[in-house]
Amino acid sequence: MTDTTLTPASPAPARRGGGREGRRALRAAPMASFPTLVREIPVYNLVPDEAVELIHEESMRILEEVGCEFRDDEALAMWQAAGADVSGTRVRIDRALLMELVSKVPPEFTLNARNPARTVKVGGRNTVFVPMYGAPYVRDLENHRRYGSLEDLNNFHKLAYMLPALHSSSSICCEPMEIPVPKRHLHIIHSALKHSDKPFMGIVTSKERAEDVMKMAGIVFGEDYVKDNTVLVSITNCNSPLVWDSTMLDAMKVYARHNQPLILAPFALCGASTAASAVGAVAQVNAEALAGVAFTQLVRPGSPQIYGQFMVTVDMKSGAPMGGTPEAAQMMFLMGQLARKYRLPWRTSGFHVGSKLNDAQAGYEANMLMHAAILSGANYVWHVAGWLEAGLCCGYSKFVTDAEQLVGWYKYAGGLSFADFKEAMAAVREVGPAGHFLGTQHTLEHFEKAFFIPSIMDFNSFEQWSAEGAKDHDTRGREKARAMLNAYEEPKLEDGIAEGLRDFIARREEQLPNSVN
Amino acid sequence: MTDTTLTPASPAPARRGGGREGRRALRAAPMASFPTLVREIPVYNLVPDEAVELIHEESMRILEEVGCEFRDDEALAMWQAAGADVSGTRVRIDRALLMELVSKVPPEFTLNARNPARTVKVGGRNTVFVPMYGAPYVRDLENHRRYGSLEDLNNFHKLAYMLPALHSSSSICCEPMEIPVPKRHLHIIHSALKHSDKPFMGIVTSKERAEDVMKMAGIVFGEDYVKDNTVLVSITNCNSPLVWDSTMLDAMKVYARHNQPLILAPFALCGASTAASAVGAVAQVNAEALAGVAFTQLVRPGSPQIYGQFMVTVDMKSGAPMGGTPEAAQMMFLMGQLARKYRLPWRTSGFHVGSKLNDAQAGYEANMLMHAAILSGANYVWHVAGWLEAGLCCGYSKFVTDAEQLVGWYKYAGGLSFADFKEAMAAVREVGPAGHFLGTQHTLEHFEKAFFIPSIMDFNSFEQWSAEGAKDHDTRGREKARAMLNAYEEPKLEDGIAEGLRDFIARREEQLPNSVN
Repeated sequence: MTDTTLTPASPAPARRGGGREGRRALRAAPMASFPTLVREIPVYNLVPDEAVELIHEESMRILEEVGCEFRDDEALAMWQAAGADVSGTRVRIDRALLMELVSKVPPEFTLNARNPARTVKVGGRNTVFVPMYGAPYVRDLENHRRYGSLEDLNNFHKLAYMLPALHSSSSICCEPMEIPVPKRHLHIIHSALKHSDKPFMGIVTSKERAEDVMKMAGIVFGEDYVKDNTVLVSITNCNSPLVWDSTMLDAMKVYARHNQPLILAPFALCGASTAASAVGAVAQVNAEALAGVAFTQLVRPGSPQIYGQFMVTVDMKSGAPMGGTPEAAQMMFLMGQLARKYRLPWRTSGFHVGSKLNDAQAGYEANMLMHAAILSGANYVWHVAGWLEAGLCCGYSKFVTDAEQLVGWYKYAGGLSFADFKEAMAAVREVGPAGHFLGTQHTLEHFEKAFFIPSIMDFNSFEQWSAEGAKDHDTRGREKARAMLNAYEEPKLEDGIAEGLRDFIARREEQLPNSVN
Repeated sequence: MTDTTLTPASPAPARRGGGREGRRALRAAPMASFPTLVREIPVYNLVPDEAVELIHEESMRILEEVGCEFRDDEALAMWQAAGADVSGTRVRIDRALLMELVSKVPPEFTLNARNPARTVKVGGRNTVFVPMYGAPYVRDLENHRRYGSLEDLNNFHKLAYMLPALHSSSSICCEPMEIPVPKRHLHIIHSALKHSDKPFMGIVTSKERAEDVMKMAGIVFGEDYVKDNTVLVSITNCNSPLVWDSTMLDAMKVYARHNQPLILAPFALCGASTAASAVGAVAQVNAEALAGVAFTQLVRPGSPQIYGQFMVTVDMKSGAPMGGTPEAAQMMFLMGQLARKYRLPWRTSGFHVGSKLNDAQAGYEANMLMHAAILSGANYVWHVAGWLEAGLCCGYSKFVTDAEQLVGWYKYAGGLSFADFKEAMAAVREVGPAGHFLGTQHTLEHFEKAFFIPSIMDFNSFEQWSAEGAKDHDTRGREKARAMLNAYEEPKLEDGIAEGLRDFIARREEQLPNSVN
């Protein structure tokens, strides 16, 4: 019940905590970003607390009796030193030890952007929206599907910068496929830092690359600053069932030591990498995520971390992952209830779909998940722009479509305004039966801000829409993306910093091979 | 937390109340309809009880101080006799009188179908899904937009019969535009009764037509039977702000006297026919709906009725109604909270959208609303198949798309199954780290039923999808609609009944003019 408005303004007082005050400040002057979303609506608890405890109990038993694999000698030594039962690569973790480690994670943290006005908070009632990550393909401005390029990646970072409800630029929205794999991370991070001033994401494919990311962050934020201050978020996926592999553990060690949060999120294909049971899948994923969270606290106690999940069901006919299914939504609610039990910031995914196109399927799938993400109280809502084909493809039209929808979700989660309720009721008295409200003082004062009005969606009459070319939503989305890119202005880095990044990349490119072997 | 499966079976034990027992019985033999959905998940309360009371208080004050117009002499006399303050057509209703009348409405009722296996319950934890109503246009199997015809209407009734998650055939899915208006109702009701054996909806455009509908229902169910037993639902819209007009009141009198429920639902264009405030709109619509509900209890105390709302926001740029907006969802939650306060069965709308096409916009809009409809605990979820263009158009592809999505929503609202949780956890122990679950006994037993697998949505690989023609969702929907219509088999009425209907229609056609003047 707050007075939420959606007029973006500058400077966004993110460091002052967003929320009611932040939104008030927003009205001052126009700018292209919303502060952290502070949820003013209650969370939805799908199951009673006893059910949450039942799942927790089974997760604890998995880690105590079955254990989890940690495929890294240093990690195993750390677990042994902490008192876990280590046998080969198998680590059995007693619930007391596990929960003690988990309790060290701060329930909320600040994620600093290179532009302080874009700094956001993660955890508690705070929610941030983050574009997709990891697509080898793009669906381009001509609606062709092809490999992603560095130009595409630049474009997605430009759009992420311009779209006000996106709180991060992500990093690998699409893969720049023309760049050799060993050098790719340099250009990905450079693109994110150069084209946008919002928070970004790290690279986790090797220890060396993670260290390069930290060095580049150091050039932008200051080498000392990034030893303690959180400036990026990275994803580590447990290899379900119950394996944390050496690549992920290497990345965890690099980033956690720098106080940079990992998302500890099993990527679960429910029915294949978990049992064919929504509740069973949650219990397993919870065990996997908690084991990862606990490990980060061996690396650096008190470092910020993000508990999480990515769970999709599997199509029995094709074995393919499915996006917006009812079970995916239900599992999300359970993970939210568990995250609150553990007082952990947590991540889920919003608009991720199986559809190949930005069509009706995409829309149905996307909003099934986003509604659940908002009501389950997720803090880091990822993959909320661009995602198609179960993550294999990033679409330009989908990117701007999703981001526009986020404005509506931002408003939704901001809650209902009772601020002008008495005035509104006075208007009812003024108008009386059989009148209309278009000319009342209340309407004139409130109309523009009262309701969400999207721009890519079309609500014109059929005749008007036909006169404008009878374009479907996908077409309008591509037009909007193109128009935005034409209007883009770079939020330039200081000359010295820009040069520092270029020098670093040039030096590393000389050192690194072009082939992975 | 129940064991929900989605295999439709026959006979559906709807009269025995659906729910857990109903779903168990469903597994016996295949049939094309689900029983009443019994919600096993909690409702979502968007605002605290105090906020609901605040809205209630303002609604009461509107009816006490401003009053509501009832433009019918008989209705005014009834209000006067009941003790309301009547002045001209303005009726001011004291809250004690209002709430006394509202309290006479049963919180739950049975809606009988001509096939008892299709009988459903409305109210309490029961939810039914009902296709759209009122479109002059159709978007046809070739994706052309044109006037609706009787053949189209027959087709939508056939589809409603065949699609398992639809609990009703509605009535005027589209208008049969080639039939003269004075005779149209006869053919609409005939089509619904002939092509489907599910519950249906009445006609409200005049007293005479409403009486014709009751006579036709009498031919099918027995003249005496329909004097007391509920067999159809009709819609009456308050003319916002605060007018119940003579046409609506005539229909209310005819149907309520027969114990047939009305939906008392203001059709509110928020910002135009209400104040530009979501909360203000709800307070007004609540007053309007309650005044209608109360009036039906003057006509026949204890008759079943459905409290309701249809609230869309208005696009400031074009004045056009918008479908799936965050405010529409928020207002739905408030109406649900009010309905529970009054212990009234209540109606909302599910998949209603502003989009002209069954495209991404349609999908985003549709699921924004349906998620809210399910979580707000609505009992009669209307317009859940076919709706496009703010109701001006019924689409074949949209119809089957929506109905397939309903299967997922049916499953969602059925809650999570903990029945096989222990088995699932045993499977985790059996598989251990780094294994997979595809071969486990638990997976083999549960896979097919564990997760919702839609058929129009495509989750195949890009390559497979391309090989199959790279069709978008809309195209696949039209193909599915066509295939279903080709496979349709009529659930024939008994010869005598079919003949009785034909005779009645022939007689009335002779009596009625071809022109409305």
